[in-house]
Amino acid sequence: MFKPGLAINAATTRKQWSLPEAIDGYARLGVAAIAPWRDQLHATGVDAAARALRDAGLPVSGLCRGGMFPAPTAAGRTAAVEDNRRAIQEAMKIGAPVLVLVCGGLPEGSRDIAGARAMVQDGIAAILPDAEAAGVKLAIEPLHPMYAADRNCINTLDQALDICNALDPTRATALGVIFDVYHLWWDPKIAAATERATGRIHGFHISDWTVPLADMLNDRGMMGDGAIDIAGLAKGVVKAGYSGLAEVEIFSDRWWREDPETLVQTCLQRWRNLLQMV
Amino acid sequence: MFKPGLAINAATTRKQWSLPEAIDGYARLGVAAIAPWRDQLHATGVDAAARALRDAGLPVSGLCRGGMFPAPTAAGRTAAVEDNRRAIQEAMKIGAPVLVLVCGGLPEGSRDIAGARAMVQDGIAAILPDAEAAGVKLAIEPLHPMYAADRNCINTLDQALDICNALDPTRATALGVIFDVYHLWWDPKIAAATERATGRIHGFHISDWTVPLADMLNDRGMMGDGAIDIAGLAKGVVKAGYSGLAEVEIFSDRWWREDPETLVQTCLQRWRNLLQMV
Repeated sequence: MFKPGLAINAATTRKQWSLPEAIDGYARLGVAAIAPWRDQLHATGVDAAARALRDAGLPVSGLCRGGMFPAPTAAGRTAAVEDNRRAIQEAMKIGAPVLVLVCGGLPEGSRDIAGARAMVQDGIAAILPDAEAAGVKLAIEPLHPMYAADRNCINTLDQALDICNALDPTRATALGVIFDVYHLWWDPKIAAATERATGRIHGFHISDWTVPLADMLNDRGMMGDGAIDIAGLAKGVVKAGYSGLAEVEIFSDRWWREDPETLVQTCLQRWRNLLQMV
Repeated sequence: MFKPGLAINAATTRKQWSLPEAIDGYARLGVAAIAPWRDQLHATGVDAAARALRDAGLPVSGLCRGGMFPAPTAAGRTAAVEDNRRAIQEAMKIGAPVLVLVCGGLPEGSRDIAGARAMVQDGIAAILPDAEAAGVKLAIEPLHPMYAADRNCINTLDQALDICNALDPTRATALGVIFDVYHLWWDPKIAAATERATGRIHGFHISDWTVPLADMLNDRGMMGDGAIDIAGLAKGVVKAGYSGLAEVEIFSDRWWREDPETLVQTCLQRWRNLLQMV
């Protein structure tokens, strides 16, 4: 069963609200938790944001994002690992239980996707002890294959689970995955992969896939407006033992033009509708 | 080993050249074969096109496209099957050895992708006897997952092979797949899937994935300009027994603005460069 309520990823309202405004707005409108992004977090200041979250009594569902491990040089890869270590510290400071990893695409000019994937696995291996020490979970978020070249070469749930199993075969650490319906809905093997993810799911992200996509990045749909069987996928993650919050993450030029309170209330209403089918 | 020469899919020059112009241009520039699309074929007339092809001595590598099987009603699905039967006849008339199947997405308003996939399998089963009778091979072309909702719910090579094995377990018919690098390059399981495709590969389509994609449909890159390890994938299909032509298929607003002779010559040169690495 899902945890009652709904988390919202602050990217959903990033064009309307700064992080302090989102913290205030989400708390006021009954959102159960917020997932900040590091750019907004840095703009606010980590300590100031932590204070604002405490003052508002708003839990944090996760921090976006670590990752971006591949780089053409060893120095570049080391710099990426160092940046991920800072992200883990920031997650700890704001009480984020999980750091979301968008793992990175091919280094500039490279055609070696297998090599990039190996760099991702090495990068996660390097930061896993830091995450454990900080008590922050790491969650690999497989991204839709249309982002394989430039954003994330981890593109299926099975592939993310293969990395989890390679780095943490006994499930001793808190390495897991984010299940985002936008990225995974098309996968013909998603039912079996979801079952395989039992105990590894650290987050369930929702939005919808509308056609035609006006933009590969910023045209995600509101739940219920598109082709994704969100309720069906939600049943699968619950069956796989997930008992956390669902989290809305909508990057959308259309929704970024909307009044933010209306947007948040629409998210809450749509999730209530969906839950009746889960 | 690839068959010497290079086929070009007529979509590559569709904004510059009608089908008769492409037949003439490709033959003159030393292209080894052409793959027409049905809209251009109908505009020319099937008999006239067949005559022009014979007169130019230009072989046909395939006909694009059949498929588009899912529909909300049984009548709609029957109409799709009938249209595919016409496509098989057209393929036979122009000497196309293979009909390329772009299988179709979700019916309007549907969220049942498993249901759409079943409709695809039923549709192919219905036309397979017609294809055999006509001596035309059917080739399922898995399309990139970004087209799952609206164009093709068959999105991985493994999934296409599962349909082949279900409908033709003994490989008695000529049901197979098109391997298009643009659609398949990201798949973490592509090496094993390619091996599994041995004897089933009816075409090898090439283009490249450049970033950022300006458009989901019409921003394919020229071979060598993007992130795809085309030579590596080509080695795999050769190892899987493919001995036909490579075929360029570039939908691109950028290349459609180019002089068509320059475009064709660029394709030929880029493939020669690639072949040195295969």
